[in-house]
Amino acid sequence: MKVIVFGGDGFCGWPTALHLSQLGHNVTIVDNLSRRRIDTELGVESLTPIAPIAERLNAWQVVTGRVIDFSPLDIATDYDGLCDLLGTLAPDAVVHFAEQRAAPYSMKSAREKRYTVTNNVNATHNLLCSIVDTGLDIHVVHLGTMGVYGYGALGIDLPEGYLAIDTSNGTSGEKTTREILYPVDPGSIYHLTKCQDQLLFYYYNKNDRVRITDLHQGVVWGTNTAECLLDERLINRFDYDGDYGTVLNRFLMQAAINHPLTVHGSGGQTRGFIHLGDTVRCIEIALAHRPDREDRVQIFNQLTEVYSVRELAQLVSNLTGADITYLENPRNEANENDLSARPESLLRLGLKPTLLRESLLNEVIEIAQKYTERCDRSKIPATSLWCAGKP
Amino acid sequence: MKVIVFGGDGFCGWPTALHLSQLGHNVTIVDNLSRRRIDTELGVESLTPIAPIAERLNAWQVVTGRVIDFSPLDIATDYDGLCDLLGTLAPDAVVHFAEQRAAPYSMKSAREKRYTVTNNVNATHNLLCSIVDTGLDIHVVHLGTMGVYGYGALGIDLPEGYLAIDTSNGTSGEKTTREILYPVDPGSIYHLTKCQDQLLFYYYNKNDRVRITDLHQGVVWGTNTAECLLDERLINRFDYDGDYGTVLNRFLMQAAINHPLTVHGSGGQTRGFIHLGDTVRCIEIALAHRPDREDRVQIFNQLTEVYSVRELAQLVSNLTGADITYLENPRNEANENDLSARPESLLRLGLKPTLLRESLLNEVIEIAQKYTERCDRSKIPATSLWCAGKP
Repeated sequence: MKVIVFGGDGFCGWPTALHLSQLGHNVTIVDNLSRRRIDTELGVESLTPIAPIAERLNAWQVVTGRVIDFSPLDIATDYDGLCDLLGTLAPDAVVHFAEQRAAPYSMKSAREKRYTVTNNVNATHNLLCSIVDTGLDIHVVHLGTMGVYGYGALGIDLPEGYLAIDTSNGTSGEKTTREILYPVDPGSIYHLTKCQDQLLFYYYNKNDRVRITDLHQGVVWGTNTAECLLDERLINRFDYDGDYGTVLNRFLMQAAINHPLTVHGSGGQTRGFIHLGDTVRCIEIALAHRPDREDRVQIFNQLTEVYSVRELAQLVSNLTGADITYLENPRNEANENDLSARPESLLRLGLKPTLLRESLLNEVIEIAQKYTERCDRSKIPATSLWCAGKP
Repeated sequence: MKVIVFGGDGFCGWPTALHLSQLGHNVTIVDNLSRRRIDTELGVESLTPIAPIAERLNAWQVVTGRVIDFSPLDIATDYDGLCDLLGTLAPDAVVHFAEQRAAPYSMKSAREKRYTVTNNVNATHNLLCSIVDTGLDIHVVHLGTMGVYGYGALGIDLPEGYLAIDTSNGTSGEKTTREILYPVDPGSIYHLTKCQDQLLFYYYNKNDRVRITDLHQGVVWGTNTAECLLDERLINRFDYDGDYGTVLNRFLMQAAINHPLTVHGSGGQTRGFIHLGDTVRCIEIALAHRPDREDRVQIFNQLTEVYSVRELAQLVSNLTGADITYLENPRNEANENDLSARPESLLRLGLKPTLLRESLLNEVIEIAQKYTERCDRSKIPATSLWCAGKP
């Protein structure tokens, strides 16, 4: 299968590109390298020493004999370049990671809010528009987030994208139901853009019958996949800073440098989690199950376990002996919520979850401890405030 | 009250600015004149001879002694200019019309789709972001559309923005309901952007307590308001072309030049309508009833009557003797739908609807017949196709 991975130099994009290449797919990475630019802007570096993209791709070829092409395109702004690329490659599918993906970064100031909205909305819209414009039949696999629903406000059992509601008409008395997109409740500008994406997918699927799979992913943990481990030049990024570090990776790093684990608020925030190795496997599965032309947008829950932040901190503390400290929450969010969601479709299609309790220790030793000397402790605090009154 | 009218040179914006000025408000128009640029691009002109903005404003001052300021700003792209303007004026409220508002134009080709998405989403987001950024307490009154809901797919009785749904939890058996934003089903890229706007409003209201009133407007008919009629230089635009002409204005023009009334499909498409004079009165009412800081987004239905396109054609035919012709529908939409919606809040707050049957004949004589010689018959057909397979 010919596949373009948009955002293929990023945290999830890079291991996905390698995994798809290893499976024998013809892979092209398209990336404007914005994630590296933002590292520079924030004055941080991946804990792991990631190689430049050219070196990464060269190493991949040397180690595996497989070629991944690269195009340094900004799909949010270069629409003609995007159409040319699609026309030239005529891919069977695209995997769309080309969005600013950190909630705290999206809340830093007006500049980051505006960048996140215009980048994410235009990237997704340009992609959909270019598929219709070129007349190609391309399956779009998009990385969405469980976070579009907010947490706990509606119901705690999250289905896979749709909700049947009662549409009985008061005047006729007839009992009818209809499936709607599960109601959203975004908790940051970043999450808001993923909700806006959902509307774009809904419309282009309805009007133009574009085949779309939207993966509603949980918080990703872990660093390397089997392919990343083949050579140190293939190593994946590991973010531990207050903006881009996801909660579990931040705890692991904090434990490694004897920094207390920083729980915001009461730690009762309950979220879905997934290991990076499962992420790439989910994308493999999604690509293998493209929807029919008449199907609605196919939405899969892409998470394997549910934990509260407090439970995660306790788990890491038990493994490492780290202390836990409770800080005021810079986010505008509930301190406690329930959540229940399962990856029904992906399990049915063959996903075998990597469990946190079984694999966490490796991560601590292989990554957080190994690269401790590269950590800049000053970058650990989360400094992005959700609004003027916070914390 | 100090009010900025964004998009105050347009079809609804101009009479709104005049009406608010006449009421004694301190009004500033902000407009990038994109609507006039698009006329040039499409090779069409308003049927009515609209004066340049400077001449309009000068005439207003000469006739009424009132001053309306003007700033030629593009709020979708000039964020710093927008913040400077808000900081300098510190308005109590803003009326936001600064969006590309024609569904057929938004579907012409990739260029217009992309312009509509980036212009509308960034204009709305920049406005909300700048209000938070400047720390000002500004009531945002936005012109949304009934069309965000699609027609007939969910239920036919459209409430004012929200829907109570059953969120009973299967495991606890407890009966609970929650109000969600009424589910959307956009029928064009233009409508899609208004759905994306709703998410922006929802989020900025939730996170930053921005005061927002979203007016879900029906199809606007009519041309002039009392203020526009004070002087010919104050005349409002009247669009009859296939892209920007709304259905009733198109029928009136067609009748005036003995062109058969062009009904697309069966004409069973049922829509909400409102006279332009009621639009400006609704905005006056909305400005006078700003929500409290703790209120959710205030959503008002802004339509006064519901008709099918077939009924409208028959009405105009009865008045004028015009023939009716049925054409293939270039839009991707249901040919028949029911709709029931009332402007409950606006009626309660004092709106007195202008009824179509009572005022339509004036419009035919005062505008369509008076300016017949300015009509370019070649611009009447609707040529924008919703997708490659249409019609």
